[in-house]
Amino acid sequence: MSGFTGSSGIIIITEGRSFFLTDSRYTAQASEEVGDFKIKLYKKQFEEVALLLKKLKSKFIGFEGKGLTYEMYHKLKRLLSGKKLIPILDDIDRIRCKKEVDEIRKIKKAIELGTAGLCAARKYIEPGIIERDIALKTEMTMKKKGAQGLSFDIIVASGSRASLPHAKASDKRIKKNELIIVDLGAKHQGYHSDETCTFIVGKPNAKQKEVYQVVKDAHDMAIESVMPGVKASHIDSVARSFIRQAGYGKYFGHGTGHGIGLAVHEWPNISPFNDSIVEVGMVFTIEPGIYIPKWGGVRIEDMVMVTKDGCEVLTEMSKEMTVLS
Amino acid sequence: MSGFTGSSGIIIITEGRSFFLTDSRYTAQASEEVGDFKIKLYKKQFEEVALLLKKLKSKFIGFEGKGLTYEMYHKLKRLLSGKKLIPILDDIDRIRCKKEVDEIRKIKKAIELGTAGLCAARKYIEPGIIERDIALKTEMTMKKKGAQGLSFDIIVASGSRASLPHAKASDKRIKKNELIIVDLGAKHQGYHSDETCTFIVGKPNAKQKEVYQVVKDAHDMAIESVMPGVKASHIDSVARSFIRQAGYGKYFGHGTGHGIGLAVHEWPNISPFNDSIVEVGMVFTIEPGIYIPKWGGVRIEDMVMVTKDGCEVLTEMSKEMTVLS
Repeated sequence: MSGFTGSSGIIIITEGRSFFLTDSRYTAQASEEVGDFKIKLYKKQFEEVALLLKKLKSKFIGFEGKGLTYEMYHKLKRLLSGKKLIPILDDIDRIRCKKEVDEIRKIKKAIELGTAGLCAARKYIEPGIIERDIALKTEMTMKKKGAQGLSFDIIVASGSRASLPHAKASDKRIKKNELIIVDLGAKHQGYHSDETCTFIVGKPNAKQKEVYQVVKDAHDMAIESVMPGVKASHIDSVARSFIRQAGYGKYFGHGTGHGIGLAVHEWPNISPFNDSIVEVGMVFTIEPGIYIPKWGGVRIEDMVMVTKDGCEVLTEMSKEMTVLS
Repeated sequence: MSGFTGSSGIIIITEGRSFFLTDSRYTAQASEEVGDFKIKLYKKQFEEVALLLKKLKSKFIGFEGKGLTYEMYHKLKRLLSGKKLIPILDDIDRIRCKKEVDEIRKIKKAIELGTAGLCAARKYIEPGIIERDIALKTEMTMKKKGAQGLSFDIIVASGSRASLPHAKASDKRIKKNELIIVDLGAKHQGYHSDETCTFIVGKPNAKQKEVYQVVKDAHDMAIESVMPGVKASHIDSVARSFIRQAGYGKYFGHGTGHGIGLAVHEWPNISPFNDSIVEVGMVFTIEPGIYIPKWGGVRIEDMVMVTKDGCEVLTEMSKEMTVLS
């Protein structure tokens, strides 16, 4: 919320004033990145935060319930005996989930870097090459193009390993006729991308084609269902019930998507448990999958932004089945 | 504590039983990595954790105060109205900070990978090369050698940028006669390394030599002072007062070191504020620095393990001034 990209900082906002507190490692970085805040340095973090809060008039202090650990909360409470600490639960998520124009611009740049990565992976995949080597070359491509970092360790999961939704790239070699899930994201100016393609090397068999098509259709239908005013759980149920009707219900064990922006996973979850209403400007992923133990898996993931009358797909890679030789 | 390296998991331990809970993305990974625990899957994380806790007899439930956010705590508390939740504050840190033989083995392997990185950086540094390119090539070297990841984004800070203790590698080109801080670490089987060398390209001038020697002496003296039974703050004060006496006190704004292991920064901090007693088996960094705005800086960092009669320096690179051509 401040523009700061370092690892230690606290914001205090009152009606009239805004403070940004950090430690001496970040003096120069904070001056560069943090615009509208008065910057202060701390040595003993919570002691000095408490000192400043005590000087402010307000008896009530809201704090980000997701941002403080219980221990930090406990410490602050002890130091601020006269004040009342009130957890802010979803309020900041709800501000963050609707992206501004400038945020979308940064997300699109992150996606562009991710696209370069997926193209590189597609190029490097061939029978005999090791998953880890594909991941490494893909990572280098993205970083050379200017990615500030990865959204997470690149997933390259081939053959039966594709049945592990969060498999890391391993020392396994790619074999002919295997499905390969490549899931990656790039970071740009604090914002993240996240996109998944499932490739096949060689000729797909009937079951591979079928599973791919079920996931692809579930994915397309879920994207079709995105609309301001629907519940997040509705979008999930569109993908989930289609996969269930196709007979693969028990092989889809995660949510259909998640919000994304300053964090790779942020509000809103597109899951059976989230009845929150989808609003214009939200950005989230749509990523149904089918994971069959020992056999393998397929996941297809795009990022979408909710618009007045539906959504815009932000990611760029085609999600038609791509056969690599 | 379970050996799990995925991103979502909760441990519940009673006198007689141990449970590891995770979600369906990690079914297979948990079976591989988590040995002595009964594995259970959750869909609604806290709901199912609460359900299990309710079934257990105990009325009192300790939870890791650093591991739960206030929001998670709040949720759990609501779901467990009959039970009493008690924060475990430092207890787990105090178990974790004293490393076992197998943990030291993993840390040493992480250090070995870090050494490969520092050697690569030393090789690539030359006038005209861009900081980011050094960082990228160094990262690749470490990852090709098998590093599971970096401990943090590699710091390559040259010239006046070396006065920013946490400068990321930038697009700045290395110039002749500049000091260059390279700070990096590798991850191996969940364990981290962290080591800093300050190099110089070309011939050091008198001030560069002096500042380097002050930091080097402070670093050596701090390592000399490590001994079971001393306070962490004592080790810090050895480095800090030497730097102060040399006239550079105001240019050393961070702590002298930090514990390291499963996290890059863990207990104990070697800082003026930590009066905890140092014990055999603890592993932490010693990393004094001098940062002079606009001029540049020097940081020298090693990792040490506390032994019966002092400490063993685990890191391998020489910390004598290294002049690169």
